[in-house]
This record gives sequence, structure tokens and C-alpha cells, in this order.
Amino acid sequence: MAAAFSGADERLAPWVVPAAGEGRVFTLAALKPSAKPFSSGDKARDEAAVDALALDLDAWQNLFYADRRHRLLVVLQGTDASGKDGTIRRVFGRMSPLGVRTVGWKAPSEAERAHDYLWRIHAQVPGDGEIMVFNRSHYEDVLVPVVQGWIDERQTRQRYAHLNDFERLLTETGTTVVKFMLHISREEQRERLQERLDDPTKRWKFRLEDLEARKHWDDYQRAYEAMLRATSTPWAPWIVVPANSKLHRNLMVATVLRDVFASMGLSYPPDDPALAGLRID
Amino acid sequence: MAAAFSGADERLAPWVVPAAGEGRVFTLAALKPSAKPFSSGDKARDEAAVDALALDLDAWQNLFYADRRHRLLVVLQGTDASGKDGTIRRVFGRMSPLGVRTVGWKAPSEAERAHDYLWRIHAQVPGDGEIMVFNRSHYEDVLVPVVQGWIDERQTRQRYAHLNDFERLLTETGTTVVKFMLHISREEQRERLQERLDDPTKRWKFRLEDLEARKHWDDYQRAYEAMLRATSTPWAPWIVVPANSKLHRNLMVATVLRDVFASMGLSYPPDDPALAGLRID
Repeated sequence: MAAAFSGADERLAPWVVPAAGEGRVFTLAALKPSAKPFSSGDKARDEAAVDALALDLDAWQNLFYADRRHRLLVVLQGTDASGKDGTIRRVFGRMSPLGVRTVGWKAPSEAERAHDYLWRIHAQVPGDGEIMVFNRSHYEDVLVPVVQGWIDERQTRQRYAHLNDFERLLTETGTTVVKFMLHISREEQRERLQERLDDPTKRWKFRLEDLEARKHWDDYQRAYEAMLRATSTPWAPWIVVPANSKLHRNLMVATVLRDVFASMGLSYPPDDPALAGLRID
Repeated sequence: MAAAFSGADERLAPWVVPAAGEGRVFTLAALKPSAKPFSSGDKARDEAAVDALALDLDAWQNLFYADRRHRLLVVLQGTDASGKDGTIRRVFGRMSPLGVRTVGWKAPSEAERAHDYLWRIHAQVPGDGEIMVFNRSHYEDVLVPVVQGWIDERQTRQRYAHLNDFERLLTETGTTVVKFMLHISREEQRERLQERLDDPTKRWKFRLEDLEARKHWDDYQRAYEAMLRATSTPWAPWIVVPANSKLHRNLMVATVLRDVFASMGLSYPPDDPALAGLRID
């Protein structure tokens, strides 16, 4: 199953990471985190558009659930403070809690480490009519271990192949996989982390380890770039979302998802003839 | 741990099912599904109150998660069309999808039937800082099997004891269990089922089996009454919500939950001294 959105929107094309073999060379540094390709240029209008899209997505979710012939997995990746939580709140926040599930992936437990690294992931993929949002994902396994040097180049390439094969299985068995990489600048991250630190209601989210990862900013950007190149596939391409602007980030993610739903050909199940004209007493 | 809300609100007291041994005799028929004990009498004002409460609950959820010393399990029980889905959408719908999880309990799978009936339930209870909403619950196991005659009286009493013991374990290890029984009249159910049938966007939700259960309305009311009497405990009392009015139902459930949060003494974790005055570069 080819991704539903490829080529559908001209504004999107430059932000879709080419699949290996497509010819186009991809460099993360060429994509500006401050860009706003989906913005109308008017802030109030963009805000109204996000509101409307969030309500649209709620309506789409209802139909998606009724149709029950598709499964949707949304992957959100990005550095600390890139806005994964905020995206979930704003883009999926008007859906009923019954209609969308999220998993925030943290360091694996002892039981999880006693299995292959996709074991815990596979257990959480969506079923028929379900929407699952991964807050971080299986892609953490080709980021931290690469930067930390826990796995070498051969092992990293092996993992890229595992991930592609896993997503091929998912897409060929009825799951649409939409992967967003939230792309912010080093300076934007600095501002957001400082803000988190200065706000007494947010300080508890701050972990000193976050600064360790920040020290390796360039290494992580390189690891992200290599990962995006190797795991953007025709069946599950990566979309880079310029995310310095939270408003733009929400607008772009919501627009892409709306287009994904719209391209699915969703419909209500056929009426049960036994129900025609039935009066309940 | 005694339930946080007992006695806190005068309007609530008549709707809390007395625990066995409390002396007060409980009959479900004495509670009017059309009552509106939490209503101000003004519809617009009640609607505004529900909106405000839903936003309050979102703020409480943030603090609840930050505090990380409690777990919250909300149980929603009620006949078909009693409004469980609607309650979840309206009361929990302003929380971020990251902050609340729901499980809709259906007939057990083959693997689930190969275990005790609380096995699948236990696997889904909330962890520290988590809110879980059960859409139907372990209480289905003392309703359908009782009405259908699959279990006899001795087995039913045994199950009541299992349920009480299970919830005692949960509450004594840090989980607050809040159980709502959404109480509608037979006529109200008729109207809602007919509406579902007549609406082309809702008809797919209608199952002919729903009418089978409706034929046994009185048996189910008796099974509910016996269950409420036997499983309302000091640690996890049942609250009957008069739910013919959707607006009142939402108002009452949201108010009770707000009071539960407010009684928990939630706070942000203490500041890490290592973060004092830290500037990020």
C-alpha cells in the first residue's frame, strides 16, 4: 500500500524524505526548522484552521471507526522539546478519548529488554478502526544507541532493515503508517528548555539527562539524517515538519492527517436488511 | 483508602449505594432516572458548567500526572444506550489524549477465556499518574452470566467477593476506584435505540442482540440491583447517576471527578536543587 498522501499536496513534496533509490539527495540541514510551508501568512487564520481541522479529524475518526477496514499508526519523532506532546494535544485533542490511543515510549523495562526490540512495539500497533499515536517510537532504537556507540554501523544498517521490513508487514496487512519528524533548531530547543526550567508548573518535566543529549546535538542531527534516509520507504515515508513555530507544526500535521483520511475512501458499513423499518417497543 | 468523595457533597449522598452492613436498604427502583440532583435548573448554566468542568479536569490531569503518587480507575457501567460513550467524550474530552486511557470491554477472546475473568482486567489497571476509564468493566461478569443463568447463586456470590477483594487490592496499593452506574429508564432506552436506528450515521452501531438484552430489562435491573448492593464497599462505593438527561449525567460525573481530584492533595514534585538558577546554552 503506497502512502496515501504522496504527491497529493504540492506544499508537502519538499518535506517528504525521498526513499532510498529515488535519486534525490536528502540532507536534513537543507530543511529550515523555521519554514512555514502550510501557513497562510495570517496567524489568526492559521489558528482558526487548526481548530477546524481538529474538529474535522474528530469527524473522520468516527467514520474511520465505523468503516473498520483500516488501521492508522502515527509516529511522532523529534528531539526533546520538539513538541510531540503539544502536537498530540492540539491535533488529536478534539477526538473522543475512545477514538485515539497513545503510547509514550520510554527506556525498555527488564522484561522488554529480554526480547527483541520490536516485541514491545508490535504489541501496541492499532487494530481495525483504531488510531494509535506513538510519542517517540521504534526509531529511538536507531538514535540513542548510534550516538552512544552501543551499536556499530553494521548493526545499525541491520536495524534499518528490520524497521523497514516491520513497517512493510504492517502496511501490507492494512495499516497506514504516517511518520512525522518534528524538526526544530538548536536555538529553539534552548529557549523551550529554559522556559520549562523557569516555569514552576513545568520544571518537574525537566531532566538533567536532557542536557546530555543536547551536548551531542550535532551527533543526533547526523543520526536523524541517516535514519530518515534509510527508513523513508515507498510504503512508509518520513515527513519532516518544520516545527519552530508550534502553530505551523500543528497546521501541517493536521492537514496531512486530514488528507490521509480523505484519501481512504471511508464509508459506513452497509445497512443490515433486518433493521429496515424496525420499531422498538 | 476510603473513597475521597464520600459525604463531601450533600447532593451526592442519596446516590451513593450503601456498603453491605451499613443498614440503609438500597433499591434501584427508588432512584429516579429522570432526577437531576446536580442541575442548577437552568440549561445554559449547566452546559457552561460542564464546559468549565471539562477544562478543570484537564488541568487536574496535568497536576495528577506530575504528582505521580496516585492512580485513578473510573468504571462506567450501564445498559445499552445509557450514555457511556457520550460521558467519556464530554467529561474526559478536553484532556490531552496523552493523559487518559480508555478500554471498551467486549466479550472475552479465546485467550482471555483461557484465564480467570479478572486476568484481562488486571492487565489494564492504571499505573502511577495514570487515569484509566473502563467503558463497561469486570462487572459485566456478574450481569450477563446471571441473567442468562450461566452461573448460579453461589457462584455469583463468589464473584462478588472476588470483585471486592480485587478492588481492595487496588485501593490499598494506591488506586482510587470511582464507579458510576448510568441509570436510564426503559422508555429512555427505547427512544435512544430508535434514534440510533433512524440515523444513517449511527445505524451501524445497532446490533439485533441489543434487543435481546432489552427483552430481559427487568432481569437486568434485578441483576444490577443485586450487584450494586453486594459490591458497593467502603473502599470502592458505587454511585448511581440519574442519566435520562445527558446534560445532567455529564454534570454529575464531572463534578464528582473534580471533587475526587481536589481531595487528593496533589502537588508538583519538589524542585531538584541541581536545577536552581540553571542557564541552558
